[in-house]
Amino acid sequence: MAEAPHAWVERLRGRFVVFDGPDGSGKSTQFKRFADLVAKAGVEVCQVREPGGTMVGERVRQVLLDNDLHDQITLRCEMLLFMASRAQLVAERVRPALARGELVLADRFISSTLAYQGAAGGLPVEEIRAVGQVALGDHWPDLVVVFDVDEQTAASRLNPLLDRMEMKGRDYHRAVRQGYLDQAAIDPDHYLVVDARDDAETVFDRLVTQLASRFRP
Amino acid sequence: MAEAPHAWVERLRGRFVVFDGPDGSGKSTQFKRFADLVAKAGVEVCQVREPGGTMVGERVRQVLLDNDLHDQITLRCEMLLFMASRAQLVAERVRPALARGELVLADRFISSTLAYQGAAGGLPVEEIRAVGQVALGDHWPDLVVVFDVDEQTAASRLNPLLDRMEMKGRDYHRAVRQGYLDQAAIDPDHYLVVDARDDAETVFDRLVTQLASRFRP
Repeated sequence: MAEAPHAWVERLRGRFVVFDGPDGSGKSTQFKRFADLVAKAGVEVCQVREPGGTMVGERVRQVLLDNDLHDQITLRCEMLLFMASRAQLVAERVRPALARGELVLADRFISSTLAYQGAAGGLPVEEIRAVGQVALGDHWPDLVVVFDVDEQTAASRLNPLLDRMEMKGRDYHRAVRQGYLDQAAIDPDHYLVVDARDDAETVFDRLVTQLASRFRP
Repeated sequence: MAEAPHAWVERLRGRFVVFDGPDGSGKSTQFKRFADLVAKAGVEVCQVREPGGTMVGERVRQVLLDNDLHDQITLRCEMLLFMASRAQLVAERVRPALARGELVLADRFISSTLAYQGAAGGLPVEEIRAVGQVALGDHWPDLVVVFDVDEQTAASRLNPLLDRMEMKGRDYHRAVRQGYLDQAAIDPDHYLVVDARDDAETVFDRLVTQLASRFRP
């Protein structure tokens, strides 16, 4: 019997993988497809999405998304709220799932805070990392997959009504994108950059090829 | 004309003073009386109470006090939520009031987190301080007044229906109390311990005497 096409997926058991990238990178589409592939290969997947994912986190999410608070909330408060939600997510869902040998697959995580509140917002990344050290403890991701996309392509994929980028402009997107690329550049063992400019099918094939190469025995 | 009886109060302009202590220490009664004394002496007082004090903080307070979440929320998440609220309070109220030359008088602050979540709860105090460094920046209190009270006296002052101590027991109160005393012992320049076992009148006289001695030119 020939080896299964995705035998390397077995090596994802008990790992913590994050899919991240700028708005319009298509990461959520890739997230869903990849979770299906892993599940079909027989590996249990614990899917988590930020902010939220726990009862406490959902409540924090409501505060973060409340339009009445949006103009008041400082970047530092916002970052600490994300971290509070994340600490709860790690304790309640990530740690137990890893202990059960599942793949934990997260749509956004601390890499988003480093890119949005840090690189683009201007909060020092050392401050974010220091708080992250407390919030996450030993549960930093094994791998962060960054879906990299230029601002034109990203803009073409976004619903203008929901578009943070439209409001904040192209310079903001550039800073977010660069924030992700800088994270990957200084920590290549824990980051994987996937070129996400093409159609979903092409990007998915590329993603699988790159992950297989990373996780192949 | 004789010097005003509380001329030293002038020296509180632009300072940040916290009143803190275990539940049942009587600190909130002292807080109110002291704010009145300062205002009568002609110094503007910005009074803040934790958690809350800002629109964002009030929303965070609702999450922290929600009974449905109480059994789920981890100590680390709770600590980060307090810090998020505190970061907002510093940016929105403390920093501007200090800049206007007011006395900022806070009922509870990071000293509460160090005593409750730290000393009594078991969260490492270094973690709390590291997050506090990010949340507060340069706005650590100039002085924390700790109202010190033994567990019998504290219990006699509490409404049993609202009593965290009743639920958690005397060992918990002892750990909280010791948490405050330890903070004061390692940082005597920024802490003042007031014996709060007596009636409110006696404790207030003692408070004023000790503060006058600390702030006298």
